[in-house]
Amino acid sequence: MKTSAYEIIKKKRDGQTLTEYEIKWFIDSLVSGEVKDYQMSALLMAIFLNGLDVFETAALTDAMLNSGTTLNFNDEKVIDKHSTGGVGDKTSFILAPIAAACGVKVPMIAGRGLGHTGGTVDKIEAIPGFNVSIDTNSFKKKLDELGLVLIGQTKDIAPADRIIYGLRDVTATVESIPLITASIMSKKLAEGTSGIVMDIKVGSGAFMKTLADGRKLAKSIQNTATRFGRNIFTIISDMSQPLGTHIGNSLELIECFEILKGNIENDLSELSLELAGAMVYLAGISKTHAKGKQMAKSALTSGKALEKFKEMIISQGGDSAVIDNYDIMPLAKCRYDVVAKNSGFITTIDCERVGMMIVDLGGGRRNVGDKLDYGVGMIIDKKVGDKIKKGDVIVTFFYNQNQESLVGALADEFGTKVIKVGQGKPKQSRPLIIETMEKWSK
Amino acid sequence: MKTSAYEIIKKKRDGQTLTEYEIKWFIDSLVSGEVKDYQMSALLMAIFLNGLDVFETAALTDAMLNSGTTLNFNDEKVIDKHSTGGVGDKTSFILAPIAAACGVKVPMIAGRGLGHTGGTVDKIEAIPGFNVSIDTNSFKKKLDELGLVLIGQTKDIAPADRIIYGLRDVTATVESIPLITASIMSKKLAEGTSGIVMDIKVGSGAFMKTLADGRKLAKSIQNTATRFGRNIFTIISDMSQPLGTHIGNSLELIECFEILKGNIENDLSELSLELAGAMVYLAGISKTHAKGKQMAKSALTSGKALEKFKEMIISQGGDSAVIDNYDIMPLAKCRYDVVAKNSGFITTIDCERVGMMIVDLGGGRRNVGDKLDYGVGMIIDKKVGDKIKKGDVIVTFFYNQNQESLVGALADEFGTKVIKVGQGKPKQSRPLIIETMEKWSK
Repeated sequence: MKTSAYEIIKKKRDGQTLTEYEIKWFIDSLVSGEVKDYQMSALLMAIFLNGLDVFETAALTDAMLNSGTTLNFNDEKVIDKHSTGGVGDKTSFILAPIAAACGVKVPMIAGRGLGHTGGTVDKIEAIPGFNVSIDTNSFKKKLDELGLVLIGQTKDIAPADRIIYGLRDVTATVESIPLITASIMSKKLAEGTSGIVMDIKVGSGAFMKTLADGRKLAKSIQNTATRFGRNIFTIISDMSQPLGTHIGNSLELIECFEILKGNIENDLSELSLELAGAMVYLAGISKTHAKGKQMAKSALTSGKALEKFKEMIISQGGDSAVIDNYDIMPLAKCRYDVVAKNSGFITTIDCERVGMMIVDLGGGRRNVGDKLDYGVGMIIDKKVGDKIKKGDVIVTFFYNQNQESLVGALADEFGTKVIKVGQGKPKQSRPLIIETMEKWSK
Repeated sequence: MKTSAYEIIKKKRDGQTLTEYEIKWFIDSLVSGEVKDYQMSALLMAIFLNGLDVFETAALTDAMLNSGTTLNFNDEKVIDKHSTGGVGDKTSFILAPIAAACGVKVPMIAGRGLGHTGGTVDKIEAIPGFNVSIDTNSFKKKLDELGLVLIGQTKDIAPADRIIYGLRDVTATVESIPLITASIMSKKLAEGTSGIVMDIKVGSGAFMKTLADGRKLAKSIQNTATRFGRNIFTIISDMSQPLGTHIGNSLELIECFEILKGNIENDLSELSLELAGAMVYLAGISKTHAKGKQMAKSALTSGKALEKFKEMIISQGGDSAVIDNYDIMPLAKCRYDVVAKNSGFITTIDCERVGMMIVDLGGGRRNVGDKLDYGVGMIIDKKVGDKIKKGDVIVTFFYNQNQESLVGALADEFGTKVIKVGQGKPKQSRPLIIETMEKWSK
């Protein structure tokens, strides 16, 4: 068989279906350098506009998956979770120790943040000494012993995805369901888990803005997962406002510790338990999702989950004293409370702008390679629908002394544009957990 | 105003209309290096699939035109001709001296060949000593004195087009009417002529395969030309078989000299006179196109056109003895006649494959920068509809001694696949000159 980048791009441009061989040839040649990035980006745009069917999506996933090394645990208790990303999304730090405390083995290979959504790896690094660079052997050993390990993405896993993601990010080809599916699944399948719990977020702060698109993505991911012999449990959750109250690297860990200590119950703890319960269920430890959630809840209230988190911190070289002394983590010295100018009900919170404010403060990345300030952030102790009185604190900014004027501008913008206050109580918005789906491959 | 490559790609991806500012910003940033080639190729694919309206096409042309230096002759007698390219297309060498002999000033800034269509600059370089690298001052001087000058494309004229064309060629985004329009017109407008004669070719050997697409391109180019104050005369001509009989660099010049000497009359001379007549008409030298063609015919039969060609060769450092002694040009030593295996009528000639056979022989380029063999080529003395007898020569290959086995394979392919012979006389195919259009801007 003979093909060329030109012929393959042309076929997809003309709305034809690519063969498995053509997709594999293109991806292999991209990684080897024979196909150029400007050819990949032309194909990405053609895929964005003309789509990929389920077979093409599976072939793309397969080609990206096999562009690097793959792990294989051969253990039905090894379950991974993936979130499509949102503002204030820190469920991993809560659900992973909970699930591990219930007997699930949780190998977290997590990403760094870019743009308005933060990264799990960035957040955990706020703990002094915590090491996310662990070789494959130690990774497997720690998973076996502790049931819980958290590392950063390695260059060996799905290298094609790294190239493609970098291009999508600058060529306006991110929001494509087949491309998102292949990107997520190539990494998740390479990690060799028996099952995957997906948290697909929809709403203004998510990549998928509408529930319809969220459902399409869920379906596409389910199809790909089962085609590759993995069980999958999908939760579609709301991301029209930040999850939890704390945003910013150190601040988000503090909120997680507080939940694991049983000091806070909120939307974040609710979603974390839902996801952890699904992991317990998928691992075959509980007979139903509801039972899984019960077990998750017990692991949380008994303090076993917090203990598990502590063990992981120690296991990965971090200072576990952080749990009782948050001051070990970097935290910005200055605080600024923004108060409501009017009484009324909160009607909307511009989630994406909140995420970008963290970037503005230096807590997130505008470009790959930007250094982070772990200590900056925001606490937003209000939710859409809450009744507020004039003078109530609606957000607290955490910032550094040299950021006075920036924070002044952000505070002003927050009070006038990010949070909208209306007079009537807004009608009940959709629930946090919008719907769940499960699909077993065996 | 603030914009970004991402925002502009996204708008076109979503089928929105780009502003003049956005298009100019993108092209300027591409030339300066701020916008990357992989972003340009994503935009090209989005344009290919979602189109550009007439205003966007004009804005793109304008931005590409102004990416480099522009000439301005302020002379209504300065008329250029452009062909969208085809196999055996060598009209420039005939129509330019004819038009110049009639008083038109013809500044030819011509390209090199890539793929199945040869380039005018490549062909003229078969004449020993002929120099196509001439600075702008000498260019204008020669045009004034002689009315005829032929140079290669310079780096200064429409540099954005060079980058974009290079990308289109490898990302399957060539056959887009707005992109073709902007590419052609940015160069032609930069050359500062008062009028342009366009030869739009349609058929299996052309970029535009159908008459409908050819008409769309003609319309798009007309709109852009008049929007920029240029008069335009468009001829849509057939390219379903090679034009003339000789293909290959030296061989094509030989055919042109024979026509200018009055020794041959064929489809090539017919189209050349049609185009030259349009140039005479557009320059205001004749009142009608028909009169222009009469004047062109006189310039040919009187030998004035041949004399003009000779003057140009001398003016540009070439050896004008070539006109009476073709052996001065490189010509391959070996000949191979392919004869018809059956009697009948020629039903089709695969034009594009003929062009690629020249590339196979080394007479055309597969990649930019390939060296050419000027001496190889083919003579196909038959046309679609011709009656042939078994044993008649249907093509003669001109090749080098070390190409025996290659030519054996090509000869076999030519006899069985490139030329198709049927029993009944094929019904009259469409004429060479399919239709003409004119549009005056003042």
